[in-house]
Parts: sequence; structure tokens; C-alpha cells
Amino acid sequence: MNVIEVIRAKRDGGQLTDDQIDWVIDAYTKGVVADEQMSALAMAILLRGMTGAEIARWTAAMIASGERLDLSTVDRPTVDKHSTGGVGDKITLPLTPLVAACGAAVPQLSGRGLGHTGGTLDKLEAVPGFRTKLSNAEFVRQLQTVGAAICAAGEGLAPADRKLYALRDVTGTVEAIPLIASSIMSKKIAEGTAALVLDVKFGSGAFMKSVDDARELARTMVELGKAHGVVTRALLTAMDTPLGLAAGHSIEVEESLEVLAGGGPSDVVELTLALAREMLAAAGLDGADPADALRDGRAMDKWRELIVAQGGDPSAPLPQAAETEVVTADRDGVVSALDAYGIGVAAWRLGAGRARKEDPVSASAGVLLRKKPGDPVRRGDVLMELRADTPDRIPPARDVAVAAVTIADVAPTLSPLVLERLD
Amino acid sequence: MNVIEVIRAKRDGGQLTDDQIDWVIDAYTKGVVADEQMSALAMAILLRGMTGAEIARWTAAMIASGERLDLSTVDRPTVDKHSTGGVGDKITLPLTPLVAACGAAVPQLSGRGLGHTGGTLDKLEAVPGFRTKLSNAEFVRQLQTVGAAICAAGEGLAPADRKLYALRDVTGTVEAIPLIASSIMSKKIAEGTAALVLDVKFGSGAFMKSVDDARELARTMVELGKAHGVVTRALLTAMDTPLGLAAGHSIEVEESLEVLAGGGPSDVVELTLALAREMLAAAGLDGADPADALRDGRAMDKWRELIVAQGGDPSAPLPQAAETEVVTADRDGVVSALDAYGIGVAAWRLGAGRARKEDPVSASAGVLLRKKPGDPVRRGDVLMELRADTPDRIPPARDVAVAAVTIADVAPTLSPLVLERLD
Repeated sequence: MNVIEVIRAKRDGGQLTDDQIDWVIDAYTKGVVADEQMSALAMAILLRGMTGAEIARWTAAMIASGERLDLSTVDRPTVDKHSTGGVGDKITLPLTPLVAACGAAVPQLSGRGLGHTGGTLDKLEAVPGFRTKLSNAEFVRQLQTVGAAICAAGEGLAPADRKLYALRDVTGTVEAIPLIASSIMSKKIAEGTAALVLDVKFGSGAFMKSVDDARELARTMVELGKAHGVVTRALLTAMDTPLGLAAGHSIEVEESLEVLAGGGPSDVVELTLALAREMLAAAGLDGADPADALRDGRAMDKWRELIVAQGGDPSAPLPQAAETEVVTADRDGVVSALDAYGIGVAAWRLGAGRARKEDPVSASAGVLLRKKPGDPVRRGDVLMELRADTPDRIPPARDVAVAAVTIADVAPTLSPLVLERLD
Repeated sequence: MNVIEVIRAKRDGGQLTDDQIDWVIDAYTKGVVADEQMSALAMAILLRGMTGAEIARWTAAMIASGERLDLSTVDRPTVDKHSTGGVGDKITLPLTPLVAACGAAVPQLSGRGLGHTGGTLDKLEAVPGFRTKLSNAEFVRQLQTVGAAICAAGEGLAPADRKLYALRDVTGTVEAIPLIASSIMSKKIAEGTAALVLDVKFGSGAFMKSVDDARELARTMVELGKAHGVVTRALLTAMDTPLGLAAGHSIEVEESLEVLAGGGPSDVVELTLALAREMLAAAGLDGADPADALRDGRAMDKWRELIVAQGGDPSAPLPQAAETEVVTADRDGVVSALDAYGIGVAAWRLGAGRARKEDPVSASAGVLLRKKPGDPVRRGDVLMELRADTPDRIPPARDVAVAAVTIADVAPTLSPLVLERLD
């Protein structure tokens, strides 16, 4: 097998054979195929596309590059959720204990933020003592005892994807639906979950700007899940406006606690419940009502249990930013738009985000919104608070935050949060 | 400047700015842009193309990555020739001394063979003692004294191209017209020649299989030459059948000597004279008749002078192969086709070619044709001789050599060797 022939085949619009895919993934994992060869192939895949059969084989080859967890010893039905990421997307935090409180086991292997989007592990690390690194044995044991675990994927899971993801990140080859779908699904399938609900986002703050791309990605992933025996469903959800009022780490944990206490912003509650219902149905637990579990405190109890199991102190105060500055309205009117991407970039500039995956993040930096689209405002009203560890972080964030808000004379027509459901 | 933004711009079908091109070539030469990033960009260029303005800037940036030779001290008009390569293409060997004998100075920076195509430097190294490595000072001095030099390009000439060419070779990104054109022209322009004639080949044994691709490449290069003040012309020539009767190194030197002695195969003589006339015209030496210089021995004298100047012994016997085997006709008829690619692969398998640029080649291995398209044959007639250093080289070469010959009942219609002229 010759890597140049494989690259040429895809470059010239051909379909890769099963043998070519198996070989190139294995050879890349072992370092026989070099980074510069794989990046050329990734660009050819991005521009030429892949058939469903090619994507399925590519995913299978990435799973086969490492170990596959066996969750058969967990006596509860397993169900996981994956979001393609957005601004203020803390949903995993209330959702995981909520679904576990309703009887499922939730094996949440999560990631970190990059660019303008946040990551679940960064958010949880705002909780003093919380450990995001668990061994496979700890992970499985916690699923049995607590019914939920949120941690980083182990080194042994889909190592081909780990290597390819890092390469795509630096070579402009991230935005290829076959590569995104196979990356997400190889990890989720290798993780061993029996069911999976995907939150595929579209809009300015999402990875996929158009709903058509998001739908294609969702369909591709649902097919991949089914092909590997994982009950897979997807929701297409809007990401033009940040979810909730907080975009940062400790402030998103605080907002998640409000939801777990039965309150919280209505959009966060709506999406948390919609995803919880999908997860419980996918796990065969149709009878459970997640809204009850929020009201009666079971979800909050499970949160505390989960935090303690991973070394965290659920009662410890969360880090608070040293610097706070407000952005106010420069006119009377109604907030007609609040651009998720702009707010994401502001949070990033304040210190909550990272440009490279090895960069540190600030636990307390971020944007706390006071107004959302549809809210009336008067000149001088506080629109949002900018929080940072040092004052120099504020001005560059302020510029982009101010530009993200549109105030108009008439109220906007608000779009639904959950647009479609695919299964 | 951010390399990912540059890659994305081209990936998404955009046009790179002058600043982006200057920066990316400089950063790649310095190692700031990594190989895996440049290979992704090369693949995007291959699939998305480049405008004339982008190609011109890319070429200028590659020239600017290194030194540019100054041939102003050479008192004769300088004119060079470049062939895009083929099977049996020894034309540089008789052509360079021929044009020098007619009054021009020929600064021939040449390359080595790769795959099924031969390289001028490999052929000349079959001459005992010949040195293909000259310093810039030796190169310029020899142009003044002899009027011709054939050597490898110095390390300082277009280092960006040197690095990019090696990368393209292993990443399936060779076949991009903007990259081929800028690679060839950056070296030729940096070499300092005032005029240049391009022999752009098409057909099975050429790099460009179709005449349309060859024409586009030729036009692109002629434009680049003109933009940089180099008088540039191109011939489109056929490469479906090997040039002449020899495909190898020492056997091609022998054939070149026949041409310099006033004989040789008619196609080699035709192309040598056609290119010599173009070169002399481009150099402003329209009065010289190259056919005279072949007949009266001036071209042969110049060959001997050139060989001696570079340390070679023009009277020394050339290396001869230890093993020879003939391929004979299996029926009566007329040779209707002799596939250049097949003969090139046969010569490669016999030891004349290399798969990787660091591989050694055999000086004496190759294919010596006894029949060409249009020649009548009888069953049992010798079609060609296969020559190798060791007997194990023969059988794999024999298979592909036999398959390259077609014998039919009726004579083929032979196409012209020189199809078009562009200036």
C-alpha cells in the first residue's frame, strides 16, 4: 500500500477502498504515514467529500486504532450526550446529574474549549478539587456507583482520532463533515455507551454556521451510531445567541447550580429538559420525568455526589474575578440581537478561552449577560458584565462585546431553540 | 499573519493576497510554517487553482527566498532550455553544445530522473569523471570560457522551491499547474538567463497526459518568464513514443554523440534542431544555422570542450551493461505503437530509474529500441534490447516492455513531434 496512491485517489474525486482506509489510519497512528501526508489527505477529503460507506469505514478504523470500553458491568442503561459546542453551552453540567438521577448511567467523556467555544472540563475545573482525569477502571466504577462520570477521554481511546484532531487543528482541515462526524463518533462509540443523543448546533456561535451543514452532520452521525449498534438521536439547536446568561467557567457552574435548584434561565432549562427527555427515551426510561427531578432536588443531590466522587468540594466557594466592568446601553429600545460569536470572542479575550490547546484558561473570567434578545432597555441600563483577572484583559473584550449587541426600536421575532429532531 | 487563515482562504476558493503569499513562502522557508501546513495548502492550491496574479507572486516569492545569479559578465547572449521530461529525452546533451557552438551561452541547471523519466545529470554522470556540481563562480566562469555549463542548481537558488518540491513529491501534490510552473520558472529566473525555451511534453510518457494541460502549463510559464523580463517561448511536443532509440544513461550519451556527429535518430535530430532554432532566435542569433554546426563538427568540438571543463574524459569508454536480453516480435506486421510510459517503467526496473530521490541509478542499464512505430517487422525480429547490471532485473522489466509494443497489420498514422509553438 502506498500513501501517495491513497492521497491521489481521493484528490482526484475517487472513493477510497476499505483496505486503503484501514491501512492509512493504522499507518498514520504508527507514524508510517507522516503528518504532512495525512494533512494533504485531510484537505482532499474536505474538498472532495466522502461517501457514507467511506465515513463508516474511516470511523471503524479510528475505533480499531485503540481500545473500546466495556460498560456491560454497569447495571443501568447507559446513555451519553454530545454537543458540537457553542457559547454559554453549560448544558452537560446540569444534564448529566439530572439524567443519572432519573435512572440512567451517563458516561460523559468531555473536552476542553478552543477559540470562542467553551469546554465542559474547563468549566468543571472551576470547582475546587475536581479531577477531570479518571482511569478506565475509575470511570466504569463511578458509572456503577454514582451513575455518572464527566472526565477526559483516556489515551487509549481512538488514538488515531487524537492524533488526527491535533493535526486538523493546525492545518485548516477542521471543517470537513466526514472528519468531524468520524472524530466525534469514534470516541463516543469506543467509550461503550449504548445510546447517544447529539446536540448539533447551527448559527454564528456554532461550528456549523448553516442549518443545512448542521443537518448533514447530524444525519451522518446518526447513521454512524446506528451502524455501530448505538441508539443515536440528534437535535438541531440554535446557537445565534449565547445559551443562558453566563459565558465563562465559574459563572457557568453557578448558572448550572441555579438550574439544578429548579430555577435558571429559561433557554438553559428548556434545552436541558429536551435533551434529558431524548436521553431517557433512548435509554428506554420513558417513564421518568426530568422536570420532577429538578424540582424535588434529586438532580442537585446527584450533582453533589458526582462532584464528591471526582474529588471536588460542592460547597466550596467558586473563584471570583478581580476585575469587573459593565457595558451599558447607549440608547432606549429593545435588544434585537446578541451575537453568540462576538460574546464568545469577548469571553475568550477576557481569559476564559484559549488559542492553542496547551494554553491555560482563567476560571473566573467571562461575560455575564444582563439582557437577552427581546428585553427592553433604557439608555444607561447594564447590558452585561465583563469579568477578568487583570484590567488589561477588559478593553479588547469590550470592543467586541459592544459590537455583539444590537438595540432596535421594535422587538425581534425570536426563533425556536430546538429546530428539528433526527433519529 | 496566521497560516490557518491563509490555508482557509485558498481552501474556500479565495484568492491569496500578495502579503499572504510573500509571508507564507518566507515562513515556510524559515520553518515557521510546518510541512503539514504547507502540504494542506498545496492540496488546496491543487484543487482550487490559482489566478495568474497569484502564480506570478508565488513565483516571485520563491525567487526572493534565495539568491539570483548575475550573468551580466557573460559577454554572449544567454539562453536556456527546460523540458518537462519524458522517456529517452536526452535532447539537452546534443542541444547545449550545439547552441553554444552557434554563439550563445547556455546556463543549463539540470535535474535528476524520478520514476519513469530520466534526468540530464544522471545521463552525464555516465561519462567518466564528469562533475555535476559546480560553484556559482565556476558556473559563471565556464559560461564565459566554454559558453555552456550543465550542472545541478546550487543550494542558494530558490530554497523555498527546493523544500516545497520535496514536500509535494511525498504528499500527492505534484500535479498542480500553478505549483509546477512556479517551481520550474523560479529556478530558471533565479539562474539569471536572459532567454528561455520550454519543451512542454504531453502524452503517456510525459508528466502532462493531455495536450490541454500541457498547453495551460506552457502558457502559464511563458507568462511568468515575460513578467520577469526573460524572453520565453515554448514548444508543445509529443511524448507518446520514446525519443530516439535509447532510454537509459550511457546508451543515451552514445545516441547524443551520434547526433553531434551528424547522424542519430531522425526524431532526436528534428527536436534538437527545432529547439536550437528557438533558442538562437530567442537569444537574438537568428543568423546561425544549427544544422551546419552539427554537420561541420563544431557542435561535437563544443561537447568535448564542455565535458573536459567539467572534469570528464570525452574519449573514455562508457559503462556497458553486464546483462543483455532481447525482446522479439511474436507476429508479422507493423509496429503501430510503442508506449513511452511502458518503456520508461522498463528502463526504471532495469536499474536506470529511481523511486526516491536519494536512490542510486545504474549508468549502463536501459532499453535500446530496434524498431519504432511505422517499422515493419517479421515474427522473431528483435524489437529491443534490455540491459541491466544483474540478471534479476530483466524479468520484471521484460513484462512491461513486451506490453508496451503493439504490432498491427497496417501502418499507423504518425503524429507530428512538434505540435505547437507558444510565445
